[in-house]
Amino acid sequence: MIAADLEHLIQLLARLPGLGPRSARRAVLHLIKKRETLMLPLAESMAKAAEAIVVCSTCGNLDTRDPCGICQDPKRDRKLICVVEEVADLWALERSGAFKGTYHVLGGTLSAIDGRGPEQLHMARLVERVRGRREGEPAVEEVILALSATVDGQTTAHYIGERLADCGARLSRLAHGVPVGGELDYLDDGTLTAALKARRPA
Amino acid sequence: MIAADLEHLIQLLARLPGLGPRSARRAVLHLIKKRETLMLPLAESMAKAAEAIVVCSTCGNLDTRDPCGICQDPKRDRKLICVVEEVADLWALERSGAFKGTYHVLGGTLSAIDGRGPEQLHMARLVERVRGRREGEPAVEEVILALSATVDGQTTAHYIGERLADCGARLSRLAHGVPVGGELDYLDDGTLTAALKARRPA
Repeated sequence: MIAADLEHLIQLLARLPGLGPRSARRAVLHLIKKRETLMLPLAESMAKAAEAIVVCSTCGNLDTRDPCGICQDPKRDRKLICVVEEVADLWALERSGAFKGTYHVLGGTLSAIDGRGPEQLHMARLVERVRGRREGEPAVEEVILALSATVDGQTTAHYIGERLADCGARLSRLAHGVPVGGELDYLDDGTLTAALKARRPA
Repeated sequence: MIAADLEHLIQLLARLPGLGPRSARRAVLHLIKKRETLMLPLAESMAKAAEAIVVCSTCGNLDTRDPCGICQDPKRDRKLICVVEEVADLWALERSGAFKGTYHVLGGTLSAIDGRGPEQLHMARLVERVRGRREGEPAVEEVILALSATVDGQTTAHYIGERLADCGARLSRLAHGVPVGGELDYLDDGTLTAALKARRPA
């Protein structure tokens, strides 16, 4: 007989991706042990974020303000838009620190199997950002398609290419190749083939 | 640039066992998507449990009352005490539904390496429960040592055996053997040997 309050907490935690009933139980016992230093701050931080976080109406990023910090930042290059599937991909690119333009979060890929068409994604908003130049905004010069190297990701990239044809902006995609630090022996054939085709002078 | 509120939430979530930075980020994005149905209820449930849950002063179980529901339940057999290392073990036994006695949570095992002696565990309280018979409580007849089959677990079991020598109660331990549903081929030699030694008429 587990106390109802704990049982309820376990059931909610078990719904997080990456946690199941067993790890949720372990997590709850850990939380109870660290009541003051982890459990209460976590509950508070979660309630606060649930209240404060909004979706940026321009790019789809998550932030406490709309437009988001990146869209508002005068140092970011508005002539560059990097199209990603999810906010997680935006975060990954931000961690790399290699991109100084703006983003556009699609909210997924086109998918025949899951029945996701262009109207389920933030596609119209992207086309509008690229084609419909707003007052005081510079024209978009390049759209970088940072989509997954999967069938759905590539279908989506192709579709965006068609929608943005003759829009005046260059379209590009991320390079395929050997991951930095990766061992050739563990790479799949597709990546190896792509890396070989795209070989560069040493 | 991730919003500070989200970054803080990710850092706290990443401190849960079984979650790292990557899965904490995934969890946060999932929470934001399920704001009303998961994020707010989880924050609330966590704050509530942090407030309400206490450690049972008799057995060490976690509950909203002290003594806990199991210690208070008149249908549980107080003549039987099952000694476990952690509350997680108590929960596992409760899920099995096979035990109708009471528990005693030690809070770990003796460990020379980690420097845990008897005074770091709830050992004195166990001896007192078994030897010092309280008003209106029946004498303890059996102490079941449900400790890990590890060196530390078995050292702890041995130590408890010495502390409870001549206390009038029987001492027992869980049986070793083939897990139900387990395949022989995947079992370690120690378990197979133990299962063979403890064989029973079919």
